[in-house]
Amino acid sequence: MGEHWDRSLRDLAGEAVLETLRDAGTGDVQALYVGNMLAGQLTGQENVATAVADAAGLLPIEAVKIEAACAAGGAAVRAAWLAVASGAHDRVLAVGVEKMTDHFNDSVSAALATAADADYEAAHGISFVALNALLMRRYMHDHGVERRDFAPFSINSHHNAAGNPRAMFRSPIDVDDYMSSPVVADPISILDSAAICDGAAAVMLCPLSEARSYCEDPIRIVASSCATDTVGLAERRDPLVWGAIADSAAAAYAQASVGPDDIDLFELHDAFTIVSALTLEACGFAAPGAGVRLASDGSIGRDGRLPISTLGGLKGRGHPIGASGVYQVVEAFLQLRGAAGAAQIPDVHTAMAQSVGGSGSVAVTHILQN
Amino acid sequence: MGEHWDRSLRDLAGEAVLETLRDAGTGDVQALYVGNMLAGQLTGQENVATAVADAAGLLPIEAVKIEAACAAGGAAVRAAWLAVASGAHDRVLAVGVEKMTDHFNDSVSAALATAADADYEAAHGISFVALNALLMRRYMHDHGVERRDFAPFSINSHHNAAGNPRAMFRSPIDVDDYMSSPVVADPISILDSAAICDGAAAVMLCPLSEARSYCEDPIRIVASSCATDTVGLAERRDPLVWGAIADSAAAAYAQASVGPDDIDLFELHDAFTIVSALTLEACGFAAPGAGVRLASDGSIGRDGRLPISTLGGLKGRGHPIGASGVYQVVEAFLQLRGAAGAAQIPDVHTAMAQSVGGSGSVAVTHILQN
Repeated sequence: MGEHWDRSLRDLAGEAVLETLRDAGTGDVQALYVGNMLAGQLTGQENVATAVADAAGLLPIEAVKIEAACAAGGAAVRAAWLAVASGAHDRVLAVGVEKMTDHFNDSVSAALATAADADYEAAHGISFVALNALLMRRYMHDHGVERRDFAPFSINSHHNAAGNPRAMFRSPIDVDDYMSSPVVADPISILDSAAICDGAAAVMLCPLSEARSYCEDPIRIVASSCATDTVGLAERRDPLVWGAIADSAAAAYAQASVGPDDIDLFELHDAFTIVSALTLEACGFAAPGAGVRLASDGSIGRDGRLPISTLGGLKGRGHPIGASGVYQVVEAFLQLRGAAGAAQIPDVHTAMAQSVGGSGSVAVTHILQN
Repeated sequence: MGEHWDRSLRDLAGEAVLETLRDAGTGDVQALYVGNMLAGQLTGQENVATAVADAAGLLPIEAVKIEAACAAGGAAVRAAWLAVASGAHDRVLAVGVEKMTDHFNDSVSAALATAADADYEAAHGISFVALNALLMRRYMHDHGVERRDFAPFSINSHHNAAGNPRAMFRSPIDVDDYMSSPVVADPISILDSAAICDGAAAVMLCPLSEARSYCEDPIRIVASSCATDTVGLAERRDPLVWGAIADSAAAAYAQASVGPDDIDLFELHDAFTIVSALTLEACGFAAPGAGVRLASDGSIGRDGRLPISTLGGLKGRGHPIGASGVYQVVEAFLQLRGAAGAAQIPDVHTAMAQSVGGSGSVAVTHILQN
């Protein structure tokens, strides 16, 4: 994770695939679902999944790209899950990849703005950060909180990233760093924002019966769901109520027969600190306006009630758009497996990972158990 | 199908969805898979599936975009099929949409070239038409045929399109028209090439037991498959042997327990006349080099042994990239239902539809029966 000027989209994805196959102990894969948003715009490559299958030596298997804005990675895991559940395939890879440096496009910001409403938002020149800045300002106004109240989210992510050798930012930060970091779109500063970067992650799914032939204690995906909301923020009754996130989480809780109290850790989509606050509220961990308090009172920390972004999250690990949702599932897997190294959370039985696209317009949620 | 300067991407997709729901007699849909390749590059809209779900009034259902270059439409139908087969959803829409006029990008040709290998083909300036021109020239050389031998494919498509009120080109053409049509990339002329256009198509899938509650004789999808080959033509042992197409067809035949002789009509991916010839050979309808003879001897005609492009195909109906694969399945459905009007083929029991992306680098095949 980082700026890999020496590696192409297919290099990154190919490496992630090969490492996953080595870990699984098999090269016998039947389908490949690639989460990616920007390859067409930034590197001139669509037909992305075939290119990745080719690079990884997996031809002639089924290969399809899945796009759901920044939730593409989560959606790719879900596509793999549906393919296994359908009975069509027994060994399926979900790969997330994004190459955001060394691009030929004028502007990564313009490319990212395609996650917003092209006709009613982006066409007026508003960037994706600016849309989130509007949300953060509105939240501060409605709930009487200050910019400083969002600092613990960023501090937590950077603190946790220090324990992740694959993270982009491994230096802890403090409140002063947060408060003095350069503004991107007021009130959002650099330390509210997950970084543009290159990266790829992969995970292999198979039926539980088959998984037991590869390892003694396979991690189970006990829920998978996707829900949507309007693409444009102006269309929402209340922009601080994130319906897609709430609907997707509710469906996942129902599938897994669990509730928010049963979740031992939550890999949430902390693309911006405001997204973390709104997500915690939409998923039932806090009342409206109380999301920031879960950060300030330490609940989201490693020893708290609900650890989040345990390997750094999007903020600390980096946010290669289409890859992030797969990273989250891999990180939940590592925690459940007890393989998270210095970032390990003790006593993890149930982990949730949620990938969000647009300004909360699409969400994909997975719940995993060991 | 055509140049819809007055309608946006979401207008087109929304109309297709609403017409399909009216036809199905229900608005109760649980998921939406959108086949699309170019919306990010041409209209500045990714997060495409959420935008379509929004436009069609389907929020907050699951919505995901599927990209597999020009096979995106077929891949979206397959995603819907897998979702139904998985048991996760019982009523699923596959929608294909592409908006290729009124775009803000400099060049549709540059956007289409992202289906080729970005690093080893497109980077050198070769267009997608030019790649197919290389194939056509090689075919003419290896098999001792002339440009004129490809004319019957184009004539057949235009002839059949005349019977399709939704087709873009409803005027029949003859050999003289074909031979005198302007060259795009020698030896490919305009009348070898499917047209850039705007369009959308949709189809609803559900379990057979449930389908019977909507209509007496639902059309069954008896096979669905996807296979891949190298993205770059230079990587192939023989560029005239289309492995992905052959593998995908072979898998579909096996699933449906049928062979080429059982196929009553074939909606193939006639983006260029050379693609039709190579496809007929790869799918087992003709020996290498004999694909063009199926056209010249009338086999592909309405009264022939294997009618193809029965409602005009990509050439006559138009080729809105991500929509074409869904159009093909809808057209196979209409023929099996006996609802193809002036384009109806008699005695159709088994129909095949195949969506191809890149220079034969990915293929999705469906076999349908009534």
